[in-house]
Amino acid sequence: MNQNIRSPRPRSALIASQPINPPARLLMGPGPINADPRVLRAMSAQLVGQYDPSMTAYMNETMSLYREVFHTENEQTLLIDGTSRAGIEAALVSMIEPGDRVLVPVFGRFGHLLREIAERCGAEVHVIEAEWGTVFTPEQIERAIIETRPKILAVVHGDTSTTVAQPLDELGALCRAHDVIFYTDVTASLGGNTVETDAWGLDAVTAGLQKCLGGPSGSAPATFSARAVELIDSRKSIEAGIRSAGDPVLSSFGSATPIRSNYFDLSMIFDYWGPKRLNHHTEATTMLYGARECARLLVDEGIENAVERHRMHGGAMLEGLRGLGLSIFGDSRYKMNNVTAVYIPDSVSGDGVRGELLDDFGIEIGTSFGPLHGKVWRIGTMGYNARKDTVLTTLAALEQVLRRAGAHVTPGGGVGTAYDFYADQATEAELAASVAL
Amino acid sequence: MNQNIRSPRPRSALIASQPINPPARLLMGPGPINADPRVLRAMSAQLVGQYDPSMTAYMNETMSLYREVFHTENEQTLLIDGTSRAGIEAALVSMIEPGDRVLVPVFGRFGHLLREIAERCGAEVHVIEAEWGTVFTPEQIERAIIETRPKILAVVHGDTSTTVAQPLDELGALCRAHDVIFYTDVTASLGGNTVETDAWGLDAVTAGLQKCLGGPSGSAPATFSARAVELIDSRKSIEAGIRSAGDPVLSSFGSATPIRSNYFDLSMIFDYWGPKRLNHHTEATTMLYGARECARLLVDEGIENAVERHRMHGGAMLEGLRGLGLSIFGDSRYKMNNVTAVYIPDSVSGDGVRGELLDDFGIEIGTSFGPLHGKVWRIGTMGYNARKDTVLTTLAALEQVLRRAGAHVTPGGGVGTAYDFYADQATEAELAASVAL
Repeated sequence: MNQNIRSPRPRSALIASQPINPPARLLMGPGPINADPRVLRAMSAQLVGQYDPSMTAYMNETMSLYREVFHTENEQTLLIDGTSRAGIEAALVSMIEPGDRVLVPVFGRFGHLLREIAERCGAEVHVIEAEWGTVFTPEQIERAIIETRPKILAVVHGDTSTTVAQPLDELGALCRAHDVIFYTDVTASLGGNTVETDAWGLDAVTAGLQKCLGGPSGSAPATFSARAVELIDSRKSIEAGIRSAGDPVLSSFGSATPIRSNYFDLSMIFDYWGPKRLNHHTEATTMLYGARECARLLVDEGIENAVERHRMHGGAMLEGLRGLGLSIFGDSRYKMNNVTAVYIPDSVSGDGVRGELLDDFGIEIGTSFGPLHGKVWRIGTMGYNARKDTVLTTLAALEQVLRRAGAHVTPGGGVGTAYDFYADQATEAELAASVAL
Repeated sequence: MNQNIRSPRPRSALIASQPINPPARLLMGPGPINADPRVLRAMSAQLVGQYDPSMTAYMNETMSLYREVFHTENEQTLLIDGTSRAGIEAALVSMIEPGDRVLVPVFGRFGHLLREIAERCGAEVHVIEAEWGTVFTPEQIERAIIETRPKILAVVHGDTSTTVAQPLDELGALCRAHDVIFYTDVTASLGGNTVETDAWGLDAVTAGLQKCLGGPSGSAPATFSARAVELIDSRKSIEAGIRSAGDPVLSSFGSATPIRSNYFDLSMIFDYWGPKRLNHHTEATTMLYGARECARLLVDEGIENAVERHRMHGGAMLEGLRGLGLSIFGDSRYKMNNVTAVYIPDSVSGDGVRGELLDDFGIEIGTSFGPLHGKVWRIGTMGYNARKDTVLTTLAALEQVLRRAGAHVTPGGGVGTAYDFYADQATEAELAASVAL
């Protein structure tokens, strides 16, 4: 032993001695929500090497599982190592060349985010705006496409800030007709609402684990069509540190400009996930284990069954909130299954009620942003927490907290209405089954 | 129930039914290595909300713990949500304005990476190169600073591709004298070799968990001096979706240009980790749990003790390899404690030996890049795997595999020499203790 060893440095003994031990929470906000325990168990598995045959097999299986989750045949279906926002930036920075025109229809907070990321990529961004709680018609979007002639249409699918989802099913054909690349972020919707990558003609789709997929934030599943891949690969280069003779270098591009990011350079990430296995980042193995498990559980349940589960429990929450005497925000025709915005009664403090729910019942519901700040709470029913017990428990606790805050609520109205809703659903299912026979 | 529910989609029953179950591996390559089981246990904790008091407390504790790990008083000491490469890009893209001159001394693969990331940020990059296995003198670097007048000096500390570390202790004063911002990446060295952020005058330092910190890849601890923060904050803007009246917007910068990335915009990330708690990404909670535990274990052990542990076990591995009759690559004066490059004997296939070690003994050692490809193996002794049992097991297995491959090895020479090395260390420690008395 070297005589220079010293005793541990002076430090906060409290911090250094306390392992992670978070309080028990039922997370019923707009996400993140509680992770499925099976996902956390998968993430506790020991690591293997970056090129271990088991690791590359897990990467391939993850690609295959996410093809099912995204409903796509896209070869380039993989994970970006970062939060859902990392997925957005990887897609945009890899596709946008400085000066490109990008059209962003904004109907909530995350539309603003797409705009701002596209601006930082050097795009000439054109924005159309819809009032929060509403969406665009295909005609409005086509008109904007004709007016602005964008290279890329970038639109959020479901925006948790307003709880509504922009219908995308008619936009793919519009984009094809006008030779526009169609990018969407489905972080908030995937797994709890229908998302059809191929059938809707989506070229680039990004997501995250922390909503309906039931995992922690930190990995961004994404998929890219052949058109998107062609665009991205036209900007490819190979890092000097691992380059062989003849490989393209940053300074030898033809007409295309180099991708402005190395970390988010999808052409390199494709080569890392593909058969070349060219070294790029060191894959975040534990997050990959988690992302794979999220997809495995969804595929095992059946994607359509998962969407139906979100529809049912989201519906029960919405009806229960109405049964308490509260009003719902947003155009119900376009509301996502997994999150509901409910007006805060005039007589109560929105943050006071949220605080009491958290402190006394261990239940978290969400605040809101921008024009809705202070006006609505956002209550989620998603992923692992899209369950009957979580819906009934949240409604029961909310009733008690609202009553103690002096709001007028219908006694038993939340839970009772939710019970009725579940009973109706069961009856409908029985009827449907008897008709089918 | 809705009658549209379908049975699960056709799928690979094998994939969907198999939870994660990686093979047992002893990872003795240049990293990633096996995670400390305590880190994986911390990562299995259930999630809490993004602004839960327990979550913000964990964020603050993480900042505090990493200040000890980095040996710094820097307020801005936090995690970037991505792999270590994400930390590098966040530092560079937030500090480099297009056209800035950046000096990159390159002595291995990761110097090329710094160069290429800086180029993508729009920098005018000047490179000086040293032969792989060697480092630069302070005089060489000062001469290059005087010739190129860079705004930023960007240099890797320890480069696993060559196993040597560039001494940094004299460079901070040079940078101050020439008004240069001093950035370094310590992913490979931190926790296993001395890193003194404040004493060495480092302005921006980035790292990763997957080497001596004993965690999985996917979170990048980083720290920034007041000078670096001033530079970065001069480029600050606030996202439209969460902006209040008077906040700076992307289009209203003064002399500074906007940061080209949203995800890596450190001025925003500072506001998210700081008392303002301005929403940016959704913090990757599970990775934060892991990163906090990595630092907590290091602080608990004592950083200097951890460095000494790496010195001892790295030394035993090196002497053991010599005891087998093998030759070591690189200038031993600058070799990192945690990784050793050893020449592959002429008579054997490098990949064949690695494959047999992996397949038959479950032990992974590393290949190499660039000019060293096919010439050396890289053997790590780091983080959780800087232990006597891992060193002896690896040497014993390597002897057997080399013998079966037809190489000449000294029977028992590896393990025997390592045992002797450990015995000498113990004697030295006893002598030192008796002198101290």
